[in-house]
Amino acid sequence: VHTRYILGPEGSIDCADRGLAYGDGLFETIAVRKSEPQRIAAHLERLGIGCERLGIPAPDDSELLDRLASAASGIDRGVVKLILTRGTGPRGYAPPPAPVVTVILNAAAAGDEPPETISVATLDQRLGENPALAGIKHLCRLEQVLGQLELQSRNEDEGLMLSLSGKVIGGTSRNLFAVFGRMLVTPDVTRAGILGVMRRAVLDQCKALDLRPEEREIAPSELAGADELFMTNALVGIQSVSRLDDQPYACDAVACRFRRALDL
Amino acid sequence: VHTRYILGPEGSIDCADRGLAYGDGLFETIAVRKSEPQRIAAHLERLGIGCERLGIPAPDDSELLDRLASAASGIDRGVVKLILTRGTGPRGYAPPPAPVVTVILNAAAAGDEPPETISVATLDQRLGENPALAGIKHLCRLEQVLGQLELQSRNEDEGLMLSLSGKVIGGTSRNLFAVFGRMLVTPDVTRAGILGVMRRAVLDQCKALDLRPEEREIAPSELAGADELFMTNALVGIQSVSRLDDQPYACDAVACRFRRALDL
Repeated sequence: VHTRYILGPEGSIDCADRGLAYGDGLFETIAVRKSEPQRIAAHLERLGIGCERLGIPAPDDSELLDRLASAASGIDRGVVKLILTRGTGPRGYAPPPAPVVTVILNAAAAGDEPPETISVATLDQRLGENPALAGIKHLCRLEQVLGQLELQSRNEDEGLMLSLSGKVIGGTSRNLFAVFGRMLVTPDVTRAGILGVMRRAVLDQCKALDLRPEEREIAPSELAGADELFMTNALVGIQSVSRLDDQPYACDAVACRFRRALDL
Repeated sequence: VHTRYILGPEGSIDCADRGLAYGDGLFETIAVRKSEPQRIAAHLERLGIGCERLGIPAPDDSELLDRLASAASGIDRGVVKLILTRGTGPRGYAPPPAPVVTVILNAAAAGDEPPETISVATLDQRLGENPALAGIKHLCRLEQVLGQLELQSRNEDEGLMLSLSGKVIGGTSRNLFAVFGRMLVTPDVTRAGILGVMRRAVLDQCKALDLRPEEREIAPSELAGADELFMTNALVGIQSVSRLDDQPYACDAVACRFRRALDL
């Protein structure tokens, strides 16, 4: 596999790159602590699943790890954003038979620590459903952009997005968890949504915390009966939901236990 | 509105451009004949609808027309591809409040004349549905890329794509028309699909050809009863479908009348 690496943010890519033309690629947003990319195995696993799903040759892992390590070097607390595309090609949707994959690495120091508590509003903007694209972190993110555009007119920290068929999927950039007693429920993401790296870490930690994880369809009305809601992503970690629309949630006990267990 | 123009194909864009990061933009593929961009009013109208839908400030029309004219200059038969993005911005899905729009113009001479007849296979790959994104020509085109990937393993010219709920939408890069007597039916594109420029031209021409146009949901089984099928886009014009899966279509009379009426 031939891979062309580009280092951002001052880097530039060819106007004929299929990542720009068609969203034909994937990305990962990787937290960095003390020069170390965090949960790197989970990020590379998801990237590999995405490459396989889209028929893009995966880059060599050891070179990618080296490049990530050097991009993260010197960053005390921050992020490396990785964008992988099918590279350039002739005009038209048809993928070239032997693409030279473009990998862009863009490292940045983080701003303020994310708050541990957020308010959330259910958005009108819905997520289309397509099992072929659900779960993976591909570059076609206009629905999330429109979700954030809607959120700008509201005084809330995050938006809750439903699928077109009305099921709860998650935030514009976060997965959602709902606590019901000893059950920890998170939306199934086989038709819409993303297999979040922090979502995976939380699910894997359930047994140790004596919780029963469940990935399934969730109707919006079910959330009113939850003891506690929290949201996750690789950068913000775990954030308790203090309010969803008009309903306050007072409890953050399970979120706190996960934060401690996962060293966040 | 501030707009930054880039001329391809040797041009390059900032790695932080939101067109690459999120598919946050639109494109138009404009046919050129004797240095003249074709059906330019229809292309700019659709681009404007897309900008409005996505909340992107539309570029100044007269400057855009000048730039298109100079990009098309000297091309006897070819194409100008226009990509418009929300430009660069800080990390995250939230659009910047005052974006500097990126417009990329890439002109190229055409290859062989497109065939007047094509064979078509119904693809397994489906199109997700989202009224917020349907119709406009945004940059999130992974479904079409996966459709073309599937088509590569088949010996056919184009793939027919159905929506996730099983309705006929169109080709990977073409709109579809079905002739039933004096009725000319084309799929409704309010949940999936694209408001094609040639589709518009065909619908506008129906009255003069004494045909009754109908935009509506079409079940795949209905196509078996059609007298004739044809597909359209701005570059190939009008192409008769000689076969869809196992069914041959012998007639191309209506397609021929449109070709003559539209001077294709």
